[in-house]
Amino acid sequence: MYSGGVSTSERLIESTRALLWERGYVGTSPKAILERAGAGQGSMYHHFKGKPDLALAAIRRTAEEMVATTTAVLDGPGTPYERIEAYLLREREVLRGCPVGRLTMDPEVVADDALRAPVDETLDRLRARLAEVVEEGKEQGELAPGLDSAEIAATVVATVQGGYVLARASGSPAAFDAGVRGLLALLAPRHR
Amino acid sequence: MYSGGVSTSERLIESTRALLWERGYVGTSPKAILERAGAGQGSMYHHFKGKPDLALAAIRRTAEEMVATTTAVLDGPGTPYERIEAYLLREREVLRGCPVGRLTMDPEVVADDALRAPVDETLDRLRARLAEVVEEGKEQGELAPGLDSAEIAATVVATVQGGYVLARASGSPAAFDAGVRGLLALLAPRHR
Repeated sequence: MYSGGVSTSERLIESTRALLWERGYVGTSPKAILERAGAGQGSMYHHFKGKPDLALAAIRRTAEEMVATTTAVLDGPGTPYERIEAYLLREREVLRGCPVGRLTMDPEVVADDALRAPVDETLDRLRARLAEVVEEGKEQGELAPGLDSAEIAATVVATVQGGYVLARASGSPAAFDAGVRGLLALLAPRHR
Repeated sequence: MYSGGVSTSERLIESTRALLWERGYVGTSPKAILERAGAGQGSMYHHFKGKPDLALAAIRRTAEEMVATTTAVLDGPGTPYERIEAYLLREREVLRGCPVGRLTMDPEVVADDALRAPVDETLDRLRARLAEVVEEGKEQGELAPGLDSAEIAATVVATVQGGYVLARASGSPAAFDAGVRGLLALLAPRHR
C-alpha cells in the first residue's frame, strides 16, 4: 500500500487508521494491519506496545484531523448560521461514515477509557465550539433567542452522526442530505 | 444463558441478536454464538446455512421488533408533535445504541445486500411513518407549514441515531437527551 521513504511506524499508523475507519477496532487484526502496512511481524511490537497502543496513536491522529477540519469551518468566514450551515454541508465521504464517531459502536473502544478518551474529547470539543457559534447567532438575532446553545450543538452533531447511519443503511448519501436540510430549515426559518 | 424448553434454533437466533447488538457482525464469531446459545458445533449448520443465514434471521427479528415499537408510539394517542416527542423521548437503553442502526457501521452488513435489506427497510419505514406524522402536524397548524416532511423525518431519525453516538462517546445518556431536547425546541417553538 505504501511506497518507500515512509517510516514503518508511520505506515503502521496510517494502515491502522484506514482499517479502524473501515472495519472498527474489533474487526481489525494485527495481521491485517501488518499486511496493509507491508510490515514484518515484529515491527508492531518494535514501535508500539501492541494493538491497543498502535490504535491509540491512530485514533489520536484521526481525532486531531477532525478537530482541525471542523475548526477551520466553524472559525471561518460567514455569519453564525452560515458557519453552522458550512459545517453541515461540508463535503464528506458520507458513505464511509465518520472515522471518529464510528468507533463508538465498537465495544472494545467504549470499554477502554484510554481508547475512548480521544473520541469523547473530539466530539466534546466540536459540541463546545458549535455551542459558542449558536450563542453568537442568538446574540446577533440570527437564531431564536430561546434556544439552549448546548442542546442545539448536540442536535447538530447528532444529525451529522445519524445522517451517516441513514446513508449507509440506504447505500446513498441522499438520506444524509435530507436530514441536514431538515435541520437547517428548523434552525433558521427566515433563511428558508 | 438459556434454560431448557427453548428450542436450539430459538437460542441460536436470540444469542446472535444479542451479540450483533453488542459486537456487530464482524465481531461475532460462530464460536461465540454457539457458546452463548449453549449449542453444539453442528447445530448452527443443522438449523441454518451458516453465519450469514443465522444473522439474517436475527436481524429480521430485531428489525420487526423495532418497527412494532416505533409504530406503537407513532400511531399512539396525542397530537402529531406529541407523538414525535414520544418517539424521541421513548425510553431506550441509550448506552447500548440502536440494534438496527449500529449494523450500518459493519462493513460486512453494508456490503451484503441481503443483510443490509432489513436494516434499510426498517429505517425507511420509520422515516416514511414519521413523514406522515409531520405532514399531519403541518395540516393541523402544529408544525411550520414550510417544512419538508421527508426532510424533517430524516432529521428526527438522524438525531436519535447520532444521539447514541454522542452518548456512547461520553459514557452517559446526557448527550443523547441534549440532542433530543434541542430538536424538540426547534420543531415547535410554541411548545417551548
